[in-house]
Amino acid sequence: MSGQTPIFIPGPTNIPHRIRQAIDCPMEDQRAPDMPDFTLPLFRDVKKIFKSDAGQVFLFPSSGTGGWEACITNTLSPGDKVIASDFGQFSHLWIDLCQRHGLDVVAVDVEWGEGTPVEVYARHLEADSDHAIKAVLVCHNETATGVTSDVAAVRRVLDDLGHPALLFVDGISSIASIDFRMDEWGIDIAVSGSQKGFMLPGGLAIVCVSEKALAAAESASCPRCYFDFADMIRTNKDGFFPYTPPLHMFRGLRASVDMLLEEGLENVFARHHRLAEGVRQAVAGWGLSLCAKESKWYSDTVSAIVVPHGFNANDVAKLAYLRYGLSLGLGLSKVAGRVFRIGHLGDLNELMLMSAITGAEMAMRDIGIDVVPGSGVAAASEYYRKTGRPVDLNAGVAAQM
Amino acid sequence: MSGQTPIFIPGPTNIPHRIRQAIDCPMEDQRAPDMPDFTLPLFRDVKKIFKSDAGQVFLFPSSGTGGWEACITNTLSPGDKVIASDFGQFSHLWIDLCQRHGLDVVAVDVEWGEGTPVEVYARHLEADSDHAIKAVLVCHNETATGVTSDVAAVRRVLDDLGHPALLFVDGISSIASIDFRMDEWGIDIAVSGSQKGFMLPGGLAIVCVSEKALAAAESASCPRCYFDFADMIRTNKDGFFPYTPPLHMFRGLRASVDMLLEEGLENVFARHHRLAEGVRQAVAGWGLSLCAKESKWYSDTVSAIVVPHGFNANDVAKLAYLRYGLSLGLGLSKVAGRVFRIGHLGDLNELMLMSAITGAEMAMRDIGIDVVPGSGVAAASEYYRKTGRPVDLNAGVAAQM
Amino acid sequence: MSGQTPIFIPGPTNIPHRIRQAIDCPMEDQRAPDMPDFTLPLFRDVKKIFKSDAGQVFLFPSSGTGGWEACITNTLSPGDKVIASDFGQFSHLWIDLCQRHGLDVVAVDVEWGEGTPVEVYARHLEADSDHAIKAVLVCHNETATGVTSDVAAVRRVLDDLGHPALLFVDGISSIASIDFRMDEWGIDIAVSGSQKGFMLPGGLAIVCVSEKALAAAESASCPRCYFDFADMIRTNKDGFFPYTPPLHMFRGLRASVDMLLEEGLENVFARHHRLAEGVRQAVAGWGLSLCAKESKWYSDTVSAIVVPHGFNANDVAKLAYLRYGLSLGLGLSKVAGRVFRIGHLGDLNELMLMSAITGAEMAMRDIGIDVVPGSGVAAASEYYRKTGRPVDLNAGVAAQM
Amino acid sequence: MSGQTPIFIPGPTNIPHRIRQAIDCPMEDQRAPDMPDFTLPLFRDVKKIFKSDAGQVFLFPSSGTGGWEACITNTLSPGDKVIASDFGQFSHLWIDLCQRHGLDVVAVDVEWGEGTPVEVYARHLEADSDHAIKAVLVCHNETATGVTSDVAAVRRVLDDLGHPALLFVDGISSIASIDFRMDEWGIDIAVSGSQKGFMLPGGLAIVCVSEKALAAAESASCPRCYFDFADMIRTNKDGFFPYTPPLHMFRGLRASVDMLLEEGLENVFARHHRLAEGVRQAVAGWGLSLCAKESKWYSDTVSAIVVPHGFNANDVAKLAYLRYGLSLGLGLSKVAGRVFRIGHLGDLNELMLMSAITGAEMAMRDIGIDVVPGSGVAAASEYYRKTGRPVDLNAGVAAQM
Repeated sequence: MSGQTPIFIPGPTNIPHRIRQAIDCPMEDQRAPDMPDFTLPLFRDVKKIFKSDAGQVFLFPSSGTGGWEACITNTLSPGDKVIASDFGQFSHLWIDLCQRHGLDVVAVDVEWGEGTPVEVYARHLEADSDHAIKAVLVCHNETATGVTSDVAAVRRVLDDLGHPALLFVDGISSIASIDFRMDEWGIDIAVSGSQKGFMLPGGLAIVCVSEKALAAAESASCPRCYFDFADMIRTNKDGFFPYTPPLHMFRGLRASVDMLLEEGLENVFARHHRLAEGVRQAVAGWGLSLCAKESKWYSDTVSAIVVPHGFNANDVAKLAYLRYGLSLGLGLSKVAGRVFRIGHLGDLNELMLMSAITGAEMAMRDIGIDVVPGSGVAAASEYYRKTGRPVDLNAGVAAQM
Repeated sequence: MSGQTPIFIPGPTNIPHRIRQAIDCPMEDQRAPDMPDFTLPLFRDVKKIFKSDAGQVFLFPSSGTGGWEACITNTLSPGDKVIASDFGQFSHLWIDLCQRHGLDVVAVDVEWGEGTPVEVYARHLEADSDHAIKAVLVCHNETATGVTSDVAAVRRVLDDLGHPALLFVDGISSIASIDFRMDEWGIDIAVSGSQKGFMLPGGLAIVCVSEKALAAAESASCPRCYFDFADMIRTNKDGFFPYTPPLHMFRGLRASVDMLLEEGLENVFARHHRLAEGVRQAVAGWGLSLCAKESKWYSDTVSAIVVPHGFNANDVAKLAYLRYGLSLGLGLSKVAGRVFRIGHLGDLNELMLMSAITGAEMAMRDIGIDVVPGSGVAAASEYYRKTGRPVDLNAGVAAQM
Repeated sequence: MSGQTPIFIPGPTNIPHRIRQAIDCPMEDQRAPDMPDFTLPLFRDVKKIFKSDAGQVFLFPSSGTGGWEACITNTLSPGDKVIASDFGQFSHLWIDLCQRHGLDVVAVDVEWGEGTPVEVYARHLEADSDHAIKAVLVCHNETATGVTSDVAAVRRVLDDLGHPALLFVDGISSIASIDFRMDEWGIDIAVSGSQKGFMLPGGLAIVCVSEKALAAAESASCPRCYFDFADMIRTNKDGFFPYTPPLHMFRGLRASVDMLLEEGLENVFARHHRLAEGVRQAVAGWGLSLCAKESKWYSDTVSAIVVPHGFNANDVAKLAYLRYGLSLGLGLSKVAGRVFRIGHLGDLNELMLMSAITGAEMAMRDIGIDVVPGSGVAAASEYYRKTGRPVDLNAGVAAQM
Repeated sequence: MSGQTPIFIPGPTNIPHRIRQAIDCPMEDQRAPDMPDFTLPLFRDVKKIFKSDAGQVFLFPSSGTGGWEACITNTLSPGDKVIASDFGQFSHLWIDLCQRHGLDVVAVDVEWGEGTPVEVYARHLEADSDHAIKAVLVCHNETATGVTSDVAAVRRVLDDLGHPALLFVDGISSIASIDFRMDEWGIDIAVSGSQKGFMLPGGLAIVCVSEKALAAAESASCPRCYFDFADMIRTNKDGFFPYTPPLHMFRGLRASVDMLLEEGLENVFARHHRLAEGVRQAVAGWGLSLCAKESKWYSDTVSAIVVPHGFNANDVAKLAYLRYGLSLGLGLSKVAGRVFRIGHLGDLNELMLMSAITGAEMAMRDIGIDVVPGSGVAAASEYYRKTGRPVDLNAGVAAQM
């Protein structure tokens, strides 16, 4: 197929040129005497993306799933009780991981399209007067349904109750894209991955851990070695690693963090919100609706779009790929066939999304869904026009770039 | 600016990943004993893109303008008469170059928006019974106006009259994109450049020369050294060069030629035509018209779009760039301010063009041009849907990719 | 520092241009319908590097240590007895990992500089009449000391005794560089990593597992999730993955496997042996000796070189790096300060090694070690000259390249 | 062939990673409104490499030969007299170019191995009382023989005589590597190319022109168009170009200039001198001699090494390439077969040169030249050790990197 085919799945995301070049470096010696000059500032600056001063960041060569495993096995012991909720494929899998490591999971079922049920959590925690619940798990952004949960509200519940449970947050598809505040929200472990808002390839779990969670590690008895915080702590403090680190990914991460901090996190969040809102306008322009039940759940990183009854959403995605080279997200598990997804996180802009919107529209029409040609683009483009930055055609150029 | 910003100017064009990687190679020794194993097949295969068996190809480190200069100085002598026509910025500049090298140019003025005036040429050539006209110049595709001329018709005129003039064709923005037939059309020198249909960066003039033109070089007295065919002929025959060649560009050219031949030239032409036609549908959807006066002149590599009276087309292009990161072509010289251009040649696909069409539409609306939101994309996307390749969602995937 | 500075540590190794380019690709959709067309042949061909038909290969986003963990946790249960030997930093760490996962390790201490003590293993296994020993661990190539063990001999012991223990081999710094035969040697799990003979960056554990080991996984009760074979088996069979795979690394792995198979594994091994032997000639030329006690232990991927008493080998490595930009391997743990290491695996050639040999010599002289200038290069270069491929200066070039 | 094979020809030179990455950028729009923000500072900073305040720099898409042609055709008229000397392949070719453009060249023959004969020039200029000699041509560094001429001395002659001739210098293989002072030496046109000290691929002539030479252009009647300064002046002043510029090369040039200025030109010159001196020590260690007759002629960018009678130097280069993957420079024209060349300019370091020295030694021994194994490396490495920067192993690392 000719031409560029950026992807519009909710991660992995398109890798910016600057990050691709940072990754594409000659191999280095991970034990070189000047390696700490690179790694120590990297650890420090990655924490800024989590908005954490007090925490410690760990970079594991693994997927985000490995980050979940590190979180659980370092802080808990077999039989420990945790509370979690299941409202999408990824929140579901995290529960499964906990169970396989021998935890006793209070798994709250929630309809897909809604987020973390803060009130249900509150009831369980209130009832837990002997503090048997050791950890509260929140999936900040459920990638399968395009739903963002209210982490701060969970924190308030814990604080109001004076409950000492650790607060673990899956921020894989939110961190570096959606407002996230590790310290302010009292998060004990936040798990992220390289391949979403960090705009890197997959292969790096990025985990930020509070002092309270580090203290819990001392008595946690889940067996662990590869993901053991202790080996990392011992070697990271001098800028080194307990085993061969993926240095090329670290070089990419350096570029990623630089780009995010140069743009400013608030600007990054605003950009994601604006691009997401344009996609939502397009969905409305088509006369379709989102999987997310209410606007308070709308995710700024991914929209799951419900197709009309009688149509298979997987056909939309498959046809878009085969006919137009467009990668959309499939519906997973319970919503397979009912939704397709447009990922709108990472290195994107308005006009890239226009091609995704048009391609989705063409694929929908190809399988017989009766959306009006151009209706999605018309709605999105008018929104983007209204919310774009002002340009003065008569002013000097440099000031406006 | 976040995201990818492919360009939609009529050259230079977007460089495919494969070509970028081919260019990005460690430096080589241009006098290595195995260099001819690379260069000799390259010379041979580049000729296939010109559809020439009999000709000889020369690769000059220069822009296409250098290719014009090579063409003129190697075959003509100061005072020689040539005929050319001026119907756009590039046909105009070629005439200027001829004059600066001391040629006597019969410069036929044509309204911008039309192409080579075959009948006028015919009258001049018919009247030239003593064959004072040594060369006939045709700009195959005028990039400034989006007009393609009929080279074969010029050949027929020469043949019908038995006129021995050399036929020189500027194919810079047509070769490797629009049907071009060096040998069949009896072209004596065809000039192309790396940065259009070859999808390379600028910096390489690619010139194909007939035996008749090579013979003419022997008596041509225009002073020349850098662009002298003779030095090239002497060294190229063994696979080497008279001065340091731009080897990285040659590596890119190898990849380019491979890609073009793998796709098949007829498929390349059909792809360009289909993509171009979609853009023209969008222009019609907007209710606007092209600079090209009649459909017979329509170029499959670039469309120059006339903005309504009272608006400055340069503002469209400038605003598209500053606000949406979209590079459109400016109107040049006589049509500056009256047209903006969408280049649709090289490494493109439907969805990329959707972003260009939308971006142009947004910029037009931003400056007050009253096009209907989504009208361009609606027209283009319906055209692309109707003309796209069939996909069977139930069949195996591999067969369809 | 100007110029190229390839590294000469025993992994990570220098990444060939072709692999770097394969890795540097636009992000792809891991759930694209044609992804299995890429992944299924990759699984198949990676097995060829292990010389395994019967086994199944798993690609974990992790370091080689993760591969060890996958090996242990998928096949064993807490309390299971295994035998291993400790003759270097990496064999030592594997034992530690087993213990942290609750295994009962018979850890045989061996002097650093020797390899796996086959006779000691034999005695333990012979005495183990009730087959309490569930697995035998062999570190094929101990990277810390430059010692290669005889895996086939361990297999013979097991076969002779009819002992059913699983045979696990750490081939991280041997596979794709030193003769390795998964099926022929009856290996049940072989663990490799991307960053040694595969010439990729770190970040991928490449594990090949026999049917017998897969069967053992069904009753193994070590807790596991991230490294669980079962999730991989379920998804890999269709060409997909249980979590986001590092696709860019897979693209690099595809190039790596292609390069290895195109060269031919026996040629790869011969190349490593010849380059290694040149380094050993240089060491002899300097009048120094290797950490490896006998020639039967000599590793073809890394040489650990003992410095004379009174000198700190770390100073050699540090000075080489700081003064000449040369990365040598440090001595680790028990041999820290006593040896420095030259890695000679992966994408290297004679002349690259000449710069490593010279740089090591210069650094040794700088700290006062009295080696004769040029002595290392003289010995190595004469060896390489004698063993190089014949070149006929009068013959055509193409045939010889 | 496995491994890295940097080249040791006297240009093109190895391209640093940073420059390769700068070149490998997505295609840009050369008429974008912010393009001048990039190009105008580039013009300004390139002049710093020439050490010129007063001059104007031109960037032609061409080889260095094109730069010669630009120099001649813009400032002179057919029949004009110039003086030049022929002491190597490149000084010879420049004379040929002048003659083909109709100039009357006083061509002074000098034995190859010597440089510009300042006294002979002085005699001609002194005798030229009517100032018929319009230009004096000096090849600053003759790449074929490894000879550097004394440009300042030629300037002094002109000044002493009050002769108004223009001073043209071919600095292709000296600028950015060897001390060069455009303004201080009163040079009117200095011609350089991208592929030597600028460390870029071939394809860019970089020409710096004095105000006096620009004034001469107004009356110069050599026909010209592609290389016409006037078109460049008209468009460059706003940051644009008369024809499609090779923007990727300009991005590379930006990186090159940044690297050179960051290191500091005097440091660049000192680095080249030190690396060159090491090679000369190696030649002495072998008991061989240079083509350059006296040390005052020794070039810091290339050494042409004379092989003993009875041997063919081309065999050394050919065998080094075919057997060891080492690119050395061939002997050209008059010294073909008598010398081979080691280029030591651009992005190099000590240890890279060690591989070139060893490879050359191995190839010499292979064809029977009786140099002592290791003798070249021993001499060079001891020189580099003595002249290397001091390293304090006990001090912090960061300060020393």
